[in-house]
Amino acid sequence: MDKGASAPDDMAKDKLVKSITSMEEDFAKWYTDVCLKAELIDYASVKGCMIIRPYGYAIWENIQRQMDALFKETGHENVYMPLFIPESLLQKEKDHVEGFAPEVAWVTHGGEEELEERMCVRPTSETLFCDHFKNIVHSYRDLPKLYNQWCNVVRWEKTTRPFLRSREFLWQEGHTLHATPEEAQAETIQMLNVYAKFAEEYLAMPVVKGIKTEKERFAGAEATYTIEALMHDGKALQSGTSHYFGDGFAKAFDIQYTDKNNNLVNPFQTSWGTTTRLIGAIIMTHGDDSGLVLPPAVAPIQAILIPIASHKPGVMEKANEVLAKLKNICRAKLDASDQTPGWKFAEYEMKGVPLRIELGPKDIENNSCVVVRRDNGEKTSVSLDKIEEAIPQLLKAVHDGLYKKALERRDSMTYDAHDFDELKEIADNKPGFIRAMWCGCRECEDKLKEDAGVTSRCIPFEQERISDKCVCCGKEAKYMLYWGKAY
Amino acid sequence: MDKGASAPDDMAKDKLVKSITSMEEDFAKWYTDVCLKAELIDYASVKGCMIIRPYGYAIWENIQRQMDALFKETGHENVYMPLFIPESLLQKEKDHVEGFAPEVAWVTHGGEEELEERMCVRPTSETLFCDHFKNIVHSYRDLPKLYNQWCNVVRWEKTTRPFLRSREFLWQEGHTLHATPEEAQAETIQMLNVYAKFAEEYLAMPVVKGIKTEKERFAGAEATYTIEALMHDGKALQSGTSHYFGDGFAKAFDIQYTDKNNNLVNPFQTSWGTTTRLIGAIIMTHGDDSGLVLPPAVAPIQAILIPIASHKPGVMEKANEVLAKLKNICRAKLDASDQTPGWKFAEYEMKGVPLRIELGPKDIENNSCVVVRRDNGEKTSVSLDKIEEAIPQLLKAVHDGLYKKALERRDSMTYDAHDFDELKEIADNKPGFIRAMWCGCRECEDKLKEDAGVTSRCIPFEQERISDKCVCCGKEAKYMLYWGKAY
Repeated sequence: MDKGASAPDDMAKDKLVKSITSMEEDFAKWYTDVCLKAELIDYASVKGCMIIRPYGYAIWENIQRQMDALFKETGHENVYMPLFIPESLLQKEKDHVEGFAPEVAWVTHGGEEELEERMCVRPTSETLFCDHFKNIVHSYRDLPKLYNQWCNVVRWEKTTRPFLRSREFLWQEGHTLHATPEEAQAETIQMLNVYAKFAEEYLAMPVVKGIKTEKERFAGAEATYTIEALMHDGKALQSGTSHYFGDGFAKAFDIQYTDKNNNLVNPFQTSWGTTTRLIGAIIMTHGDDSGLVLPPAVAPIQAILIPIASHKPGVMEKANEVLAKLKNICRAKLDASDQTPGWKFAEYEMKGVPLRIELGPKDIENNSCVVVRRDNGEKTSVSLDKIEEAIPQLLKAVHDGLYKKALERRDSMTYDAHDFDELKEIADNKPGFIRAMWCGCRECEDKLKEDAGVTSRCIPFEQERISDKCVCCGKEAKYMLYWGKAY
Repeated sequence: MDKGASAPDDMAKDKLVKSITSMEEDFAKWYTDVCLKAELIDYASVKGCMIIRPYGYAIWENIQRQMDALFKETGHENVYMPLFIPESLLQKEKDHVEGFAPEVAWVTHGGEEELEERMCVRPTSETLFCDHFKNIVHSYRDLPKLYNQWCNVVRWEKTTRPFLRSREFLWQEGHTLHATPEEAQAETIQMLNVYAKFAEEYLAMPVVKGIKTEKERFAGAEATYTIEALMHDGKALQSGTSHYFGDGFAKAFDIQYTDKNNNLVNPFQTSWGTTTRLIGAIIMTHGDDSGLVLPPAVAPIQAILIPIASHKPGVMEKANEVLAKLKNICRAKLDASDQTPGWKFAEYEMKGVPLRIELGPKDIENNSCVVVRRDNGEKTSVSLDKIEEAIPQLLKAVHDGLYKKALERRDSMTYDAHDFDELKEIADNKPGFIRAMWCGCRECEDKLKEDAGVTSRCIPFEQERISDKCVCCGKEAKYMLYWGKAY
């Protein structure tokens, strides 16, 4: 494979690219521009809700299909629970209702009639799963229950942004029930590792794995684990969480089973979730000023074939031949429309297609095509006889390149702080993760939020002793934490 | 392949089978028993909603995956629209709001605050699609739009039954927009044909294709096409519908585009849907007094391997070998639990698994296994060397057997009526379809409903002139119709 030549139509390209704001100028505006111009979403008449357009939904389908396979490999089964939760059911677990009641949507009427008891639209389904587990789990033989559900949930947020925080979003929620705390804890960690694997090996997105502080825990959980990613602008994005509930929910919902010794006992529980927010994470991890950049594993189109001088004899025939080969090895598309090549280059750059393949009369003469990587613009001339070997290699190279670039950026934006002044200085001037020691008390966590504007992201599994003192109060430090500003 | 011997444990089997009501005794109770005992559903705390358990949901996943492939083959893309519809949006198309407003669930509060405008939970999404189409369709180049969405919808029904009529259900709804009425009409018929193909080739369920009378049309449609199936008890089940809207919605929602002649015109629209009701159709088409009978294409387990005398040396080793072979060719499972073979036979009969494979010491000695068909109980001895050829053939035989049996039953329960007395006599005494001529007027349709208790199912595409007179008023007949009692 050698470097080759291409035939861009720079004027048309400039025109399209100019229609999105640059990251540098206004990151938030850039993000919204990409969501709209790459045709991932449209706004809806319902405030705070979004329409996921075909290109955006195809990314979600790819995420869903591949993540679902990982869930099934680890023994999970899919189920479907009702959309509604009666108010009395939501109230059964005290911490849980306090966490969620302020942000749920309430249904009060069915048809013309007022309901006897109002119901909320599920913000999450722990209560529904518990109610069901109580009915179906009676003996140790009924355990474990390893369930997952793909569905929509609603949280009545005040401020919303496409994918990152919308009033309705799509997600999966795993809910499992186990005989022992050890087994439930192992499940919680297993699913966190599945999420981390998915983020890194499918989305090319490095993540920090860790446990949340008590303050940041899920409502009703004994422990919440998280994967945290760093976006292009230096803000953190919580990208998946896995919760261990102990037997708290089981007691509140009266779930009991007869164990092998014939005792009536409570089981132990977990839940874990990821959402369409992952699409936001992809945009803000890999995107650039030309638009979206998609990791090959979830790209709806992995290779776009663009004929050059397609009116010349033989070009379209050869293009169709090449397309047939491409379709054997990847998700490929031929754009045979009457737009100019330059317009098409810009269009598929905007849409983040990992590989562009240019095929013109000169290429055909040489029995080759030019392949351009979206992640770094690198051009390679590929023999048409070797396309079925070269394209998968190039797709892998794009994945690896994206991961490496994201990892390097994260590392270059991760700072160690040894005392409060240093932390504050970093927080004020350098977007990114701050690693700092913590004594473990809530007061220091609150103070860092108030005085430095950072929240604790997680206590990472990979601990390192940066200093012996808490960055805030100076007392003996217990943990090294990741701090940051977050979406 | 020869008839072989099996080793049932009749006592255990009897015990389990007795726990469901027979069809003869009480069909409705039989239906509910199957839903619960085959672990398809559980009841939820929310009245009229159901929990779809793993085995039921796996059937839906199989339906969804294969139907989605047919949609994509015909050029459709998936999207996701919001769950909520603001009241003002629902009211834009007059007939549509009249049809749906009485049965929607209303959200009035978000968190602690009352909403300025209440929203309903989508009962169907025409209004949302129209609202979106208005934003994204401007030129003839933007047409056609061929969209589909898989989601949940809510209709606040008074009487509910699992799968057949529940307040929340899962479905797919296609929504398409076209430049010409001809193109939109062709789409409506194409998708009806996709549904009929799916019913017959995947669900082994014969259907009558036809058009609904004006009275039975979807709210807001110019024409509604339907596939109608006949259940075991002689009641009809509408199993999928496809609607042609003309430009009615486009006008109500002000969707306009510039055509090739630079005129601003309205496009033409369709929608089409099928639901989890299809699972109810499967149960009531193929089920029997031993429980569920699943068509192989959608069965979560296509072949269940049951070891006989599994404690004897070599049995489990051989069973695992056979399982590995089976997994290459179908969805297979080995039940290695410590339940008796008889218990297992009854369990997988209840669950409708198409093929049971028995493997004991004697079979192993003969290098064979016994395969039992769920649809007719037929036993075949199959050489272990030929299992990879025999099982797919047997699965096909089960599909064909189920289709044939259902078709024969439907034909034997379809009656022609030539005048009102004959129709009334059939309606009162013989459950099934009644074919009869109709003059085309609403009065006769209402009268047949009132005085004979039957509703018009459809005007079938395959017309036959049974007589020259309307079965009700005796005036000149226009169409032959299917009439019946329906779910």
